[in-house]
Amino acid sequence: MTRTILTLCGGIGGAKLVYGLSQIIPDENLINLVNTGDDFIHYGLNISPDLDTVTYTLAGINDRKKGWGVEKETWAFLNQLKVFEGEDWFQLGDRDLATHIIRTTLLQQGKSLSEVTNFLKSKLGVNNLIVPMSETPVRTLIQTNEGLLSFQEYFVKKKCEPQVLSIEFSGCEEAQLPPILEQLIESKGIEGVIICPSNPFLSIDPILSIKPLKDFLINRNFKVLAISPYIKNDAIKGPSAKIAYELNKEPSPVLIDKHYEEIADALVIDHEDKGLKEEIKMQTYVESIVMRNNKDKQHLAKFCIEYF
Amino acid sequence: MTRTILTLCGGIGGAKLVYGLSQIIPDENLINLVNTGDDFIHYGLNISPDLDTVTYTLAGINDRKKGWGVEKETWAFLNQLKVFEGEDWFQLGDRDLATHIIRTTLLQQGKSLSEVTNFLKSKLGVNNLIVPMSETPVRTLIQTNEGLLSFQEYFVKKKCEPQVLSIEFSGCEEAQLPPILEQLIESKGIEGVIICPSNPFLSIDPILSIKPLKDFLINRNFKVLAISPYIKNDAIKGPSAKIAYELNKEPSPVLIDKHYEEIADALVIDHEDKGLKEEIKMQTYVESIVMRNNKDKQHLAKFCIEYF
Repeated sequence: MTRTILTLCGGIGGAKLVYGLSQIIPDENLINLVNTGDDFIHYGLNISPDLDTVTYTLAGINDRKKGWGVEKETWAFLNQLKVFEGEDWFQLGDRDLATHIIRTTLLQQGKSLSEVTNFLKSKLGVNNLIVPMSETPVRTLIQTNEGLLSFQEYFVKKKCEPQVLSIEFSGCEEAQLPPILEQLIESKGIEGVIICPSNPFLSIDPILSIKPLKDFLINRNFKVLAISPYIKNDAIKGPSAKIAYELNKEPSPVLIDKHYEEIADALVIDHEDKGLKEEIKMQTYVESIVMRNNKDKQHLAKFCIEYF
Repeated sequence: MTRTILTLCGGIGGAKLVYGLSQIIPDENLINLVNTGDDFIHYGLNISPDLDTVTYTLAGINDRKKGWGVEKETWAFLNQLKVFEGEDWFQLGDRDLATHIIRTTLLQQGKSLSEVTNFLKSKLGVNNLIVPMSETPVRTLIQTNEGLLSFQEYFVKKKCEPQVLSIEFSGCEEAQLPPILEQLIESKGIEGVIICPSNPFLSIDPILSIKPLKDFLINRNFKVLAISPYIKNDAIKGPSAKIAYELNKEPSPVLIDKHYEEIADALVIDHEDKGLKEEIKMQTYVESIVMRNNKDKQHLAKFCIEYF
């Protein structure tokens, strides 16, 4: 295979599949388009949680237990911040801080978020491309029963407890196709797209909120495969089942089929959900989609690649 | 004693005497006016090395071995910064970073440096006042045989190795008397001033470069006592002997006598230098001025207080 696989992914769940893919595809043939709707500025630092999770995971330095952050992290900074009664709800680890300080400095020097992401991942020894979904800010805002919340307020500060009424993506209208994707479209170098088993509302929808990106998927001349993030009416990880119910939807592969109907050709669902196959309109594959260990990640990655 | 002792001090040497004084004067009667000529912005963070050294020392959390920084410091951030080939010449410890991040955030919110300093020292349990010499930036610049260097470039990055030709204090003309000093002058609450055994060129001269501050000392209605930072033609610590020679001066209490002639009434010199007493014009006291331990600090502090 000389053409490229493009993944759309958010944080933890997406990063697991991306890590699996990275082990079976040549480095230059895997490009990961990552959600930046969760990005925010905290204590003056530009923080990109999903870009960091994907980068740390591909670098093999992620905290495997928590899913986010760096392994062997220490918390001296955060503990001292507490002495000053600082805002300690966002977990800023000592090692992780270096990423944020470098990112902030380079952005202030006029580098683009793509360039910064490329710099950071290269220094961490990652050979695959990691591309932010947008160079300009697109921010996930969550309308809840407690008012309009920024993503981090909702997700970290309030632990996803408020009831979600609707989700919007501020800045999505100004966002453009990432330059690297434009190049790929021009060279017709895309073999296929994998929509990772990330949260459809909070990780994939921000990407799809960028019209040129959604159009690129709608008008595709390649195949798109989605992996269900739901098994047995629950999310494999995270709040997406709770959010689905709050939006009066039933969290299941059937929802994913409907959610991605315009942009995907096929869906991978878990063995536990094989009974739903008939309700799903797009081409459906039944596989083990829970990635507990590296063998699971490689197995699902291989299955995806064989689809194209 | 109900009136106030004001110290002028820089970092390590000054902080030792200030710590001694803090143990024998009521909290409210000790005010420390600290050099901010070394302040700089590094990775977007407002860093005030001398304010931090005095604050950490009075809080009892300073690293006693190094003199600067926080005790039990860790370096995970700095080590990770090295992975990104960041600028690691300035030692940013993990705990120390919390101070800089809080300071930067509060300054950006419009707080003055005095207010920020007051906040930080209060949260660290310091009851004495710590006052920056100026609310506006006054920056020590060093003309050397390698060109004009900022203080931190000279002091940390180049380890004081370049030859000093002259020293200037950019911004000193705009600087005003700190508000707390204005109040003290109005209430005539100053019992006396102690010029700590800090580097005369790099720690005390920046303070004296602020004309209203120097005038306040010249036109004093209180006594001013200086402690020699030199013993036997060498500095107790730091580069001030080297700098004196480079400026064609001999580092000794005789130099201090001349240097502070307009602003001080008396000078404390070490027993080792008692032979120089006749060459010194101002009133001279011979004492042990090396502060190796807390007993030494208290001893010198008591001597100073008895002078007033």
